Amino acid sequence: MPNQSAHLDRVFRALADPTRRAIVGRLSRGPASVSELARPFAMAMPSLLQHLQVLEACRLVRSKKAGRVRTCELRPSVLGVAVDWIAEQRALWEGRLDRMEAYVTDLQTKERKNAKRRK
Amino acid sequence: MPNQSAHLDRVFRALADPTRRAIVGRLSRGPASVSELARPFAMAMPSLLQHLQVLEACRLVRSKKAGRVRTCELRPSVLGVAVDWIAEQRALWEGRLDRMEAYVTDLQTKERKNAKRRK
Repeated sequence: MPNQSAHLDRVFRALADPTRRAIVGRLSRGPASVSELARPFAMAMPSLLQHLQVLEACRLVRSKKAGRVRTCELRPSVLGVAVDWIAEQRALWEGRLDRMEAYVTDLQTKERKNAKRRK
Repeated sequence: MPNQSAHLDRVFRALADPTRRAIVGRLSRGPASVSELARPFAMAMPSLLQHLQVLEACRLVRSKKAGRVRTCELRPSVLGVAVDWIAEQRALWEGRLDRMEAYVTDLQTKERKNAKRRK
């Protein structure tokens, strides 16, 4: 799925920045206006808006304007896409460990049988 | 933890590329030599080595040389660092949902009591 892959590129790139991770962290606690999001950062508003744009482009965050206030909220299902990819690699890795363990157990059983035969 | 944050930057940046994710995917199945890793990619060796360098710099992959063969292996604990960060945000978000649910249940209980009183 090339689209899925391009989406993962964008999600991981969005998460590769401490300010954007802090925004995601804040929005995990609930929606917030842009000015609430800006408060903890010593950062000019245009820079913050740029970070928000990156988060919206990869659909991690969505925002809507009501009057003069823009409210942002997290879309946790998009975080799920990243987790799923990592979890898949871990499952493969753990599957490999399980197969290795089964192989060692099998070797040990054979070795025990051989030892009995030798007695 | 500024170091932890810089490490997360590097891990997420490393994962924001389809070739590097494919290398991680391959190494999830077990260690591989550089030439085995190169096989599925229509890519010049220097480019592949550059991707490997990025993966080694953030400690997702380690390699060792025996004679003329360099073997790479995955360090799944480093994938764990990325998963832990995402899982933490999700837990916060789910905690928020739980609190909201408790609040709604509480409102419903009060409303039911009031309705009884009104009868």
